[in-house]
Amino acid sequence: MNYSAQTVKDIGEQGVLKRVQRFCPANIVGDDGAIIEVDSGQSLVVTTDVLVEGVHFSDRTTSPEDVGWRAAAANLSDLAAMGASPVGITVGLSLPGDVTIEWIEDLYRGLSNCLNAHDTPILGGDICRSPTLSLAITALGQVLPHRTILRSAARPGDAIVVTGTHGGSRAGLELLLNPEIGQNLSPSQQKALIQTHQRPQPRLDVLPSLWRVLGEFPVAGMDSSDGLGDAIAQICRASGVGAEIEESAIPLPDGLERLVGSQKALEWALYGGEDFELVLCLKEDLAVMLVEELGGNAAIIGRIIAGSGAIANERNDPNSKRVISLEQGFQHF
Amino acid sequence: MNYSAQTVKDIGEQGVLKRVQRFCPANIVGDDGAIIEVDSGQSLVVTTDVLVEGVHFSDRTTSPEDVGWRAAAANLSDLAAMGASPVGITVGLSLPGDVTIEWIEDLYRGLSNCLNAHDTPILGGDICRSPTLSLAITALGQVLPHRTILRSAARPGDAIVVTGTHGGSRAGLELLLNPEIGQNLSPSQQKALIQTHQRPQPRLDVLPSLWRVLGEFPVAGMDSSDGLGDAIAQICRASGVGAEIEESAIPLPDGLERLVGSQKALEWALYGGEDFELVLCLKEDLAVMLVEELGGNAAIIGRIIAGSGAIANERNDPNSKRVISLEQGFQHF
Repeated sequence: MNYSAQTVKDIGEQGVLKRVQRFCPANIVGDDGAIIEVDSGQSLVVTTDVLVEGVHFSDRTTSPEDVGWRAAAANLSDLAAMGASPVGITVGLSLPGDVTIEWIEDLYRGLSNCLNAHDTPILGGDICRSPTLSLAITALGQVLPHRTILRSAARPGDAIVVTGTHGGSRAGLELLLNPEIGQNLSPSQQKALIQTHQRPQPRLDVLPSLWRVLGEFPVAGMDSSDGLGDAIAQICRASGVGAEIEESAIPLPDGLERLVGSQKALEWALYGGEDFELVLCLKEDLAVMLVEELGGNAAIIGRIIAGSGAIANERNDPNSKRVISLEQGFQHF
Repeated sequence: MNYSAQTVKDIGEQGVLKRVQRFCPANIVGDDGAIIEVDSGQSLVVTTDVLVEGVHFSDRTTSPEDVGWRAAAANLSDLAAMGASPVGITVGLSLPGDVTIEWIEDLYRGLSNCLNAHDTPILGGDICRSPTLSLAITALGQVLPHRTILRSAARPGDAIVVTGTHGGSRAGLELLLNPEIGQNLSPSQQKALIQTHQRPQPRLDVLPSLWRVLGEFPVAGMDSSDGLGDAIAQICRASGVGAEIEESAIPLPDGLERLVGSQKALEWALYGGEDFELVLCLKEDLAVMLVEELGGNAAIIGRIIAGSGAIANERNDPNSKRVISLEQGFQHF
């Protein structure tokens, strides 16, 4: 039998387990659980994500390696959003019998490639048969208690900093689904947008800069996994504050406006989701320092105000305002 | 609309999330992850289990409350098997749109009832739409490093202690599927066997007794979730040792032999699985003390020997031997 055509049905869950165990550190395989050490004085952060084929990913736009990378990146991003360094992840894999072993190994390769870039081990997990292919990941991290980044800690007067650019993941997905819309862009612009979708980078790299700038000052925030607009609205709700956003200050990826026009570009930036950037609220002078520290790969896009709800000054007409809502799309007023 | 008939489709994943958040401690809901403290000097233990409808449970034999209880119990049992006290669990729930809210709330009630008996919080998780109903649980525990129970630490001369009785869960399942076979048993015997299947008890209660008896002496072991025979075979393999078992010493639940005869009773005790008892290997004199300390709710069933493989002296003819294997069923020789 052709090796690459071997399926879960051929070698069973135990067989699959053996194949993927080589992606785990050797010393933690074999018992009922994995044993890990949390550094003294650090809090543990735990986050769980479930990804289902046909709901969260599809073979049409995502190779198994990309599925693995994206799953790892999304979970590491949740840790970064809390200010935590990763300690490890567990993987609960549900597999239809006809999934090939090659697919599974590619999935683990994608997981590992993303995790290895952040020194994060796979601590184990579970593999079982299911009619539906899915992936349940729990990520563990650690953070010094006073450095925990919460959504609820934003205060009026804080500047709102976003890392990276926004809307690129949504654009990359669209280019994968409808390559013909990319004709206005250079090949490298297209490639960069697709890369943003397929290989998002959890912004753990931002944390050391953030701690340097903050000293003992507080920070609030979360990641933009469900969209920048969602993140701003969630922070406002959790902190009991409002926000005023300058749409023209939101960093867009190269070529996005050329691809879909400025209105749609902004809609994707706010509501597209899966950019996995950080949205941080901190004192204005510290925010300026943070943007500088990050070499301009970040921007102040607005400020926290008293009240409730997030208002955006429109990009093309700053005198016109609209509400940023938890629902997809714009509400003008 | 009738409340009990409301489904996931009616209120969406966010609606479901709100309903089940009341089963989580209020202070850990709302951020990208939950923050928990691990006691200083303790190692963290992490274990993941995925349960799929139609594979691991079915509506025919298991109410949603029982699905929740059993899922929690299985994970807490994995922690007990490592010597760890539970810190919390996360729940990744995949839901078809037509699952009722009542079903989900009953599931969480079952999870909570089992967890509350062991002061264990639900730390959060994820809820998503899927064609297949499934439950991915990650349990976190903590253990003093020198008390970690490993499969690989069994040594020739150790006595093998099992807690509780074996085969009851398999019998309970059979009574649920075919109630008519229970006619030889009293109603209370039937009820007890069914209870063993539906509401297994993770043996965290054994740990304080075990530490008292052990002092600084080592212990090896695991739980019998995949069957007593599997546990013995796994310990032998991981420790590079053999085992000699007295089948007549294996504690069977009341009525099991009357229900299916002694041969089948023993087969279920060794290979039935899901009894969630502990299988522990320790010095013989300590083993005697442990059984006493547990008030007889445990037994010495054999000993670890040099060599490899587990041999059982047959219950009805102690001069006849057979191999306990990782595969279901007996191999005579």
